[in-house]
Amino acid sequence: MNNQNQLYDIGVIGLGVMGKNLALNIVDNQYRVAAFDLDEHKVKDTVRQEELERKQYLKQHRQPRLVGCNNLSEVLSSLEKPRILLLSVPAGGPVDGVCQALIEAGIERDDIVIDTGNSLWTDTVEREQRYSKDFLFFSCAVSGGEVGARFGPSLMPSGSLTAWNRIEPIWQAIAAKVDASTGLPIERFEPGNPVKEGEPCTTYIGPAGSGHYVKMVHNGIEYADMQLICEAYHLLSQGLGLSASEVADVFAKWNQGSLNSYLMEISADVLKQADPLTGAPLVEMILDKAGQKGTGLWTAVSSLQIGCPAPTIAEAVYARAVSTQKSQRQQLSQLLAGPADNSDAELDKQAFIDQLENALYCAKVSCYAQGFQLMAMQAKEQGWQLDFAEIAKIWRAGCIIRATFLQSITQAYQQDSGLENLLMADVFAKALSDKQGNWRIAVSHAVMSGVPAPCISSALAYYDSYRSEVLPASLLQGQRDYFGAHTFERTDKPAGEKYHLNWSSDRKLHKV
Amino acid sequence: MNNQNQLYDIGVIGLGVMGKNLALNIVDNQYRVAAFDLDEHKVKDTVRQEELERKQYLKQHRQPRLVGCNNLSEVLSSLEKPRILLLSVPAGGPVDGVCQALIEAGIERDDIVIDTGNSLWTDTVEREQRYSKDFLFFSCAVSGGEVGARFGPSLMPSGSLTAWNRIEPIWQAIAAKVDASTGLPIERFEPGNPVKEGEPCTTYIGPAGSGHYVKMVHNGIEYADMQLICEAYHLLSQGLGLSASEVADVFAKWNQGSLNSYLMEISADVLKQADPLTGAPLVEMILDKAGQKGTGLWTAVSSLQIGCPAPTIAEAVYARAVSTQKSQRQQLSQLLAGPADNSDAELDKQAFIDQLENALYCAKVSCYAQGFQLMAMQAKEQGWQLDFAEIAKIWRAGCIIRATFLQSITQAYQQDSGLENLLMADVFAKALSDKQGNWRIAVSHAVMSGVPAPCISSALAYYDSYRSEVLPASLLQGQRDYFGAHTFERTDKPAGEKYHLNWSSDRKLHKV
Repeated sequence: MNNQNQLYDIGVIGLGVMGKNLALNIVDNQYRVAAFDLDEHKVKDTVRQEELERKQYLKQHRQPRLVGCNNLSEVLSSLEKPRILLLSVPAGGPVDGVCQALIEAGIERDDIVIDTGNSLWTDTVEREQRYSKDFLFFSCAVSGGEVGARFGPSLMPSGSLTAWNRIEPIWQAIAAKVDASTGLPIERFEPGNPVKEGEPCTTYIGPAGSGHYVKMVHNGIEYADMQLICEAYHLLSQGLGLSASEVADVFAKWNQGSLNSYLMEISADVLKQADPLTGAPLVEMILDKAGQKGTGLWTAVSSLQIGCPAPTIAEAVYARAVSTQKSQRQQLSQLLAGPADNSDAELDKQAFIDQLENALYCAKVSCYAQGFQLMAMQAKEQGWQLDFAEIAKIWRAGCIIRATFLQSITQAYQQDSGLENLLMADVFAKALSDKQGNWRIAVSHAVMSGVPAPCISSALAYYDSYRSEVLPASLLQGQRDYFGAHTFERTDKPAGEKYHLNWSSDRKLHKV
Repeated sequence: MNNQNQLYDIGVIGLGVMGKNLALNIVDNQYRVAAFDLDEHKVKDTVRQEELERKQYLKQHRQPRLVGCNNLSEVLSSLEKPRILLLSVPAGGPVDGVCQALIEAGIERDDIVIDTGNSLWTDTVEREQRYSKDFLFFSCAVSGGEVGARFGPSLMPSGSLTAWNRIEPIWQAIAAKVDASTGLPIERFEPGNPVKEGEPCTTYIGPAGSGHYVKMVHNGIEYADMQLICEAYHLLSQGLGLSASEVADVFAKWNQGSLNSYLMEISADVLKQADPLTGAPLVEMILDKAGQKGTGLWTAVSSLQIGCPAPTIAEAVYARAVSTQKSQRQQLSQLLAGPADNSDAELDKQAFIDQLENALYCAKVSCYAQGFQLMAMQAKEQGWQLDFAEIAKIWRAGCIIRATFLQSITQAYQQDSGLENLLMADVFAKALSDKQGNWRIAVSHAVMSGVPAPCISSALAYYDSYRSEVLPASLLQGQRDYFGAHTFERTDKPAGEKYHLNWSSDRKLHKV
């Protein structure tokens, strides 16, 4: 119950792991929070945690900056007007449930409600419309999991600019920070001591829905990036016979170079980990069936629907699907033959490790190119003005795909904001041209030794497809005209002129 | 206007290319048709065509078996009861428009309305419900284009069994026919002389929507099959330096062997074709931008949503998308380096052609395995009892992917109707095990010479993934548990038991 006279800065509704940690992060940054959850235990737990941290980390015991509320009316009456409300409830029905309840509790037209859940971007577009007479509906996608929420997430806000201007100071305070000179994250893992310097990982993305779309593509890239690392692990362990710990050492070394990233770092850490039960490498005790929560497949679906090639993202989604069919794989491993000898006896192991490092870098660039092109095509379709330099910037810290590499993407878009494809940027065109020989050797080795590398190889096919001024789609158009009279264009006639050959009769050519 | 006393057997509504040809096909088979279209020119044209064909191809000038009608009431009053009505109108709104108009015109509850358009399978499910009080709504997907409709399509009917029992004789008469002993199509290209012998390419697929779903997957497979052939062409022309005519000869030879198929046959024909304008090979004058109408991408989307690996189908959709971005490709062809030397000077060309033939066969089996698994997983989800031996059978003639090869698929499912994956069938497991060495050489050659072969190589990665008893998804689950506490299962504990390691603190293992 709010029993003080001073009003609070922001209401946080929904105190699950994410909501609670966002609330505590906001408190760390000197803002005053009115917190509510339908589950009163969660309210109490959040209040207790704030008190604990205040006593533990602050020299003087200051006044509490967080109050627990008993209902939405209490939240509303505790806040400065116009109010700011942050929602952290499950995507879908619950978001609308809270919005409706806020209307009944007397929310006002100037008040801002910010959905921070994992909503489908099209739902967000609809909601902005639906609630426009009742309040300002705003949305902000949050990346970085629970640790990110607590100590600095990457934040992708979109919707009304009026709303953004009001919340921007809070958002900049709670977001992850990047050292501007190095492009590296400034980490912190202690309450009560927020990072003040550095570039905050939040920027206004665009109209309603755009922030959630950008976050969805972030996750699609994340799927591909994770699978690429797994394929490298498979090639080194299964193919080269390295132990988990030896692969960990390779990854730790790669993490010092151009492959430096959070995912590479934690992969090395996972591979070093011993199983507390058996003492074996933990990774060998983990069942090889991958779970997924949907954002990767949404990204692949969106790319198919809009006609943007994103094969490496789709292959990553499929790789998780194959992994779940373990009993089929067990049966087929007995039935299907592989290469006669895959012992790699002849192979210079260190040379191959270096080639694979370059291959992984190239494949990674290819999959980021796919993700960025997808955002660009969707932006064009929706009329969004996305600033890709800014998007790459706010992914440099706080989120799962944070990597040194994003600094190069930022620079590429700073040099040419209208870049159609990342592969056109000098830095990447040159790097891939230099390393493509190694990439080919690694893929060829995977193919010849029977180790599946769907993402590393689809990324290369993507590279070679875009390198091809002429593709065999000419034959495909011939086939389509043959069986379905679908017509074709000609290389020697203006674009848009359609031709059909009478395949089944006189074989004359007609302009349609 | 129906000015005769004898009633007609079936009404055909919508006389575009498909409706008209289906009507004429039905007439050929001695059934009497009442035809209608909102466009009276199309009615007149259909009547005229029937008259012309009757005079040209029948010894005696028989009575007309087709009448043109002026409106739906006239159609209804011309037909035997209970009536049979075949709809050939554009998918979506027009189907419901006609259904509503039929209700107003007095259609009765026992009457059958058959939607033969390219409807989304989920729309069909809804319509069967919606119209259940007014008439029997039934659907039938049609494959084979205009020639198929006229002389024998592959027909995939689904919905009420009562309806099916009544229309089955007509469907068996008009469908394409297969020689039961050889499994090959019995072709005909002349009106008035239908094929009576052979196995008809139609079978009851299952409940409402299942026929359209099966047809959608057929088209997804078709996309992949076409792209595989295009990649072989690219490897032979770009890689080996063969002329279009030389590739045509290779394809014509392959068409005599296990790769025998309609698509291979027409590809050879397209490649032999000279351009009427310039005399150059036509394929070199056709612009290399592929069109698409959606069913391929629907198949890929469905596979992602249901969690069925169908990477080769998705890669085929993406390959069409890349082809349309010709200006990007032109720019990138100047910026991105390929292999130093791709002249293939050292290559034994004939040996490579033979290896590629085997590679193409393997890739084709892999992509059919993906399509059939997708149908099986959707059937399970929807509670459909699909008979895959029958489905493979009705694809042996009439449709675009007709091929000798489907005879082997038929036999595989006849031997084991519950086959989880086509790769488990003896015939395919053995063939692929024998040929996989050649497949690897072909893919490796594509990779090393810089010719993109996304489908041939993704099909191999699919094969190698299913051959892998252990996949690196164990590391992926470790990553997910590390950054998102998503938990994992253990190889030494019962399925379903979830574990989490406290990565950020004491690294203890907890059962969740």
